[in-house]
Amino acid sequence: MQRFKNDPDEIVDETVRGFVRAHRDLVGLHPGNDRVVVARGVPRRGRVGIVTGGGSGHEPAFLGYAGRGMVDAVAVGELFSSPTAKAFLEAVRTADGGAGVCVLYGNYAGDNMNVKMAQRMAAKQGIEVLTVVANDDVLSAPPDQRGKRRGVAGEILMWKVGGARAAEGGTAEEVRAAAQKAIDATRSVGVGLAPCTLPANAGPNFEIAPGKMEIGIGHHGEPGTEVVDLAPADAVADRMLDVVLEDHDLSGGDRVCVLLSGLGATPVNELYVLYDRIERQLEAKGIGTHRAFVGNYFTSLEMTGATLTIMKLDDELTRLIDAEAVSPGLVVRKEA
Amino acid sequence: MQRFKNDPDEIVDETVRGFVRAHRDLVGLHPGNDRVVVARGVPRRGRVGIVTGGGSGHEPAFLGYAGRGMVDAVAVGELFSSPTAKAFLEAVRTADGGAGVCVLYGNYAGDNMNVKMAQRMAAKQGIEVLTVVANDDVLSAPPDQRGKRRGVAGEILMWKVGGARAAEGGTAEEVRAAAQKAIDATRSVGVGLAPCTLPANAGPNFEIAPGKMEIGIGHHGEPGTEVVDLAPADAVADRMLDVVLEDHDLSGGDRVCVLLSGLGATPVNELYVLYDRIERQLEAKGIGTHRAFVGNYFTSLEMTGATLTIMKLDDELTRLIDAEAVSPGLVVRKEA
Repeated sequence: MQRFKNDPDEIVDETVRGFVRAHRDLVGLHPGNDRVVVARGVPRRGRVGIVTGGGSGHEPAFLGYAGRGMVDAVAVGELFSSPTAKAFLEAVRTADGGAGVCVLYGNYAGDNMNVKMAQRMAAKQGIEVLTVVANDDVLSAPPDQRGKRRGVAGEILMWKVGGARAAEGGTAEEVRAAAQKAIDATRSVGVGLAPCTLPANAGPNFEIAPGKMEIGIGHHGEPGTEVVDLAPADAVADRMLDVVLEDHDLSGGDRVCVLLSGLGATPVNELYVLYDRIERQLEAKGIGTHRAFVGNYFTSLEMTGATLTIMKLDDELTRLIDAEAVSPGLVVRKEA
Repeated sequence: MQRFKNDPDEIVDETVRGFVRAHRDLVGLHPGNDRVVVARGVPRRGRVGIVTGGGSGHEPAFLGYAGRGMVDAVAVGELFSSPTAKAFLEAVRTADGGAGVCVLYGNYAGDNMNVKMAQRMAAKQGIEVLTVVANDDVLSAPPDQRGKRRGVAGEILMWKVGGARAAEGGTAEEVRAAAQKAIDATRSVGVGLAPCTLPANAGPNFEIAPGKMEIGIGHHGEPGTEVVDLAPADAVADRMLDVVLEDHDLSGGDRVCVLLSGLGATPVNELYVLYDRIERQLEAKGIGTHRAFVGNYFTSLEMTGATLTIMKLDDELTRLIDAEAVSPGLVVRKEA
């Protein structure tokens, strides 16, 4: 694997340091914990704090979504590993502006365990912590076991909605409810074309044979539901859309927000090729795309592939998706 | 090569269509030429128009820099090929708000020829076109032949400065002078770790052996000056910085703007690893980093590698780099 690395054990520290340097107008490092990134202006007095966290290797997720109208503090884990309970706790304490804290995170065993532990410790310190667990990855479990599904790029839309509701001055319960509604209205699917390699390893931790693609692949190379011949881009786009729509209650006249993310090594122009087909197919079904995000929003090191995320909008979600947000990974402008 | 593609001959059309759909709040397609992307609100009456153009495969360059306070119209070429003179001409005509047009582009034979042709045709139609040719790629020609050097990611900073000067209401000559000053103050270098493949081809158009890296590689795989063993990230960062600084007149007390771009397949976290070292090394030399951009700003399909771009700032360039700009590829916020 041809990559820019020093000692693989240092890669997360170096990433966080470089990130905080590059974006110091928006974020800083927690003074006592170098695995916690904090948005400028946090804590916001009287506002609900928004916290997330997750493994490294998904940049700009998770740390890149710290900012204004988004996430207040981010706990940073090792590559593809949950942050510690301590990091989640420090993120919670830092984000606490006296109105409670919502931890909005993805459904992985390590994160579940560490967030719960941090929640208990925070409670002892008098900080109310509510949680929302993202489970937007359709093919990671059947429809009747939605609670077992993983969280993937839909988390970004969950943070956007939760962050906007907090910025509006919502109570902790209102923010939690909005974030829950956001992720409930969101479905994602990933397609992998080539694997990624952890920097400390000699070879990839899974294989995708040339000429094949894996439908339903997870953000860490978790196996998908099917390995099939690599199809033309339009057919891949259609397949992704089918997976999402079959699990979603969308119909003609609905409005959606679409997020199409590269997994790391897929060129940006290919994302637009996929996106062109996806929006046209939605249109053909009478589904309007209110807003789209296309780019490297939630990656898996240098995996080749893409994830499609679709959120069904109602008036509240539209308002919260459209609210101003400024973070290194995502900017939504409020036009004058 | 594992990629999302349909008919390779359609890839540019599909990319442009998908791009314009995804970013329709900021850009649109020229009604008569589907290889010209136009920012919303263009032409801007009484303002100097800013035009650029270049080959596809570098997304978000070039089309992604159409927006407010940036580029007004972009001519889009085939993959790694210059746009036609006709596309440049249409971009110029569209961008013309009655105060002249500046075409700010990169030093490649095809672009030079086609921009000159468009310039002559525009003159016949009564539109004054001034040009600035970017040549920031240090290792593409020796210091005494700077005019032969290629333009690479430094073009983004040139567009930023030119776009800001136009937004301020500068005359065509003032805008040209600011963009020229910007690129004169800018140096770049690329390091390639693995090649890219044109979608119509079976294999890469050049090779980089595993365990090697190519110093000075161009945006289309133009050969660098040296192929050496792949070094640790810090050593690569130091080498890139050395190349830039040896060609630059920077000294202690200077302020710079840094742009570190991935070439397509390099994970975002590795860019932060490089960036951390680069900013620390600049600091050690007494050079302050006023603003940094780190991400996939100017890519080469799925090439693995990165480019480092450094602009020396004075008061005018600082003001113009800090001015508000909103484009799909780059956002600079004006804080309230």
